Amino acid sequence: MAQGILRRYGEHLPITDRTPDLSLCEGSTPLIPLINLGRELSVELYAKFDGLNPTGSFKDRGMVLAVAKALEEGARSVVCASTGNTSASAAAYAARAGIPCFVVLPSGNVAMGKLAQAIAYGAKVVPIEDNFDVALDLARKGAEEMGMAIVNSVNPYRLMGQRSASWEICDELGDRPDWLVLPVGNAGNISAYREGFDYYSSLGRCSGLPRMVGVQASGSAPLALGREFPEPETVATAIRIGRPVNAEKAKKAVSDSGGAFLAVDDEDILEAQRLLAGRDGIFAEPASCAGVAGLMKLKERGELPEGIRIVTVLTGNGLKDPDALLSRISPIEPVKAQWSVLEEIFRS
Amino acid sequence: MAQGILRRYGEHLPITDRTPDLSLCEGSTPLIPLINLGRELSVELYAKFDGLNPTGSFKDRGMVLAVAKALEEGARSVVCASTGNTSASAAAYAARAGIPCFVVLPSGNVAMGKLAQAIAYGAKVVPIEDNFDVALDLARKGAEEMGMAIVNSVNPYRLMGQRSASWEICDELGDRPDWLVLPVGNAGNISAYREGFDYYSSLGRCSGLPRMVGVQASGSAPLALGREFPEPETVATAIRIGRPVNAEKAKKAVSDSGGAFLAVDDEDILEAQRLLAGRDGIFAEPASCAGVAGLMKLKERGELPEGIRIVTVLTGNGLKDPDALLSRISPIEPVKAQWSVLEEIFRS
Repeated sequence: MAQGILRRYGEHLPITDRTPDLSLCEGSTPLIPLINLGRELSVELYAKFDGLNPTGSFKDRGMVLAVAKALEEGARSVVCASTGNTSASAAAYAARAGIPCFVVLPSGNVAMGKLAQAIAYGAKVVPIEDNFDVALDLARKGAEEMGMAIVNSVNPYRLMGQRSASWEICDELGDRPDWLVLPVGNAGNISAYREGFDYYSSLGRCSGLPRMVGVQASGSAPLALGREFPEPETVATAIRIGRPVNAEKAKKAVSDSGGAFLAVDDEDILEAQRLLAGRDGIFAEPASCAGVAGLMKLKERGELPEGIRIVTVLTGNGLKDPDALLSRISPIEPVKAQWSVLEEIFRS
Repeated sequence: MAQGILRRYGEHLPITDRTPDLSLCEGSTPLIPLINLGRELSVELYAKFDGLNPTGSFKDRGMVLAVAKALEEGARSVVCASTGNTSASAAAYAARAGIPCFVVLPSGNVAMGKLAQAIAYGAKVVPIEDNFDVALDLARKGAEEMGMAIVNSVNPYRLMGQRSASWEICDELGDRPDWLVLPVGNAGNISAYREGFDYYSSLGRCSGLPRMVGVQASGSAPLALGREFPEPETVATAIRIGRPVNAEKAKKAVSDSGGAFLAVDDEDILEAQRLLAGRDGIFAEPASCAGVAGLMKLKERGELPEGIRIVTVLTGNGLKDPDALLSRISPIEPVKAQWSVLEEIFRS
């Protein structure tokens, strides 16, 4: 039977007899060989497609544990400050658990499209007349004053659950890959992968860390460019973060593994999205494609060794953000419904 | 390693030594227990969530086989007439296979949102100044005159690949469920399930057919209501089909299994979508939710036996059609960023 993270990896997670058996069958996402892009880059390339999690992003891996522990600890509701994937995931697991979910966010950022998913799962969305930091402060206050479970990345169970992705990769490949290449925003996921590989290594299930390459968008690249980004801007909204909460952990993951941070332009990210879909048939949200954009850049620079085994993490489903794509497409002119016209098009 | 349909079920499919090893790791989708809805309906209820296939719908199961066989038979391009899930799936597998995909459709129906996915995968979209039937005729002519592979449901490999869903259900449950409840549009999927259960039964891997319940939207219900729908209309666009190609097969599946066809209103479908997401944390596209709507209706009528094991098929991801949801949501008014205001909301 489909199991989800808590059953599949429960022995490696802080589960007790009182932790509820929460699951949406998250995790166990496919590690898809990128046959065509791998050939072009002369490497053995895989995509860990975490966009095929139940709510469409890697956030489900940590959220299932965070909500299960919240239930165990007696929380009667869940709260987060978020405008994106976190809110969808929190809302889905809260719904499954039968408790309310509140999503606090700055009113200027209320794009209904992005929030549609959280609303579908029945979350109560609360736009406030202030910025994101204040939204997060109010969510925290809900946790402190009312015992709500805050499930932003300050919740330690989130990263613990996210470690499961590294375990799945090792279980499937029989070891860690040579390189792990992934997008970096708040830097939580790269930290979780590092901890996951370390832990599996301590069990003898993989040989230390892969070389970890964290890719940021150049308009939001505090780690890659080593300076502050008070007003980060990028098409890859899921990694548009100027002050990464887990910056220090991420730096250590990169230096301990002999890895690197890299910045790529929005154009490179969108080109990578086009290549992933157009060459290998995988549609991932823009942030997810930063890893492939990073690899293209390293290849151009002659800094990509041939023949190595690389896993790039696709953190979210392309269906999460169709606008990023649609905004670049011109309307298509209709043609006459005649075979001679179609024949010419089919031959082109 | 992740395998996809052709590797996992190759022995049961018309694969030869010359069939290419095509895969996007489709299939092996989770059978998610609907704990909360099952309790309300007093049945053991599971959702086969085929929206977690690589392109977000069950179409991938048949498309991988159709495109692999097209390659084997020497086709140099793929063509289909489609405005929805078929075009996305065809485009993804054609991209993976390295051949062009042409999508012909009536120009009046060009909703860029629905086509974004096919365009992302690099399909060439051709809107024609005529209706769907003419689009299909032109696609067929491309197949006849130019050797293009037509991958509409007239392609027999489509339904053969779709049988894999029934095999996965049996492999996971150890037998067929008591009932299988699924949306019916063109009636191909219900026919594929029937053939799949029959086949597995002949191998001794399940005990005959489950009772098959096919659910249609009442504005597009030729099988459930037994009359023609020249201009079908429903919010569940994926089953908005007035003349189902596989009508006869589907009728036989239902009568041979002691099942039934059922019509549900759009309001019931949208309520079922809300319940699936809000109670059990699963966001499926409207058509997918017809099965749950049908179960609610049978429950109301007192026609749903208690304690039986039911699988309902969720054919597509909710992210495919956020507009169906957004159109029903009113803008949310922002509130003052004060703890007293938030406290009151959190207590509500």
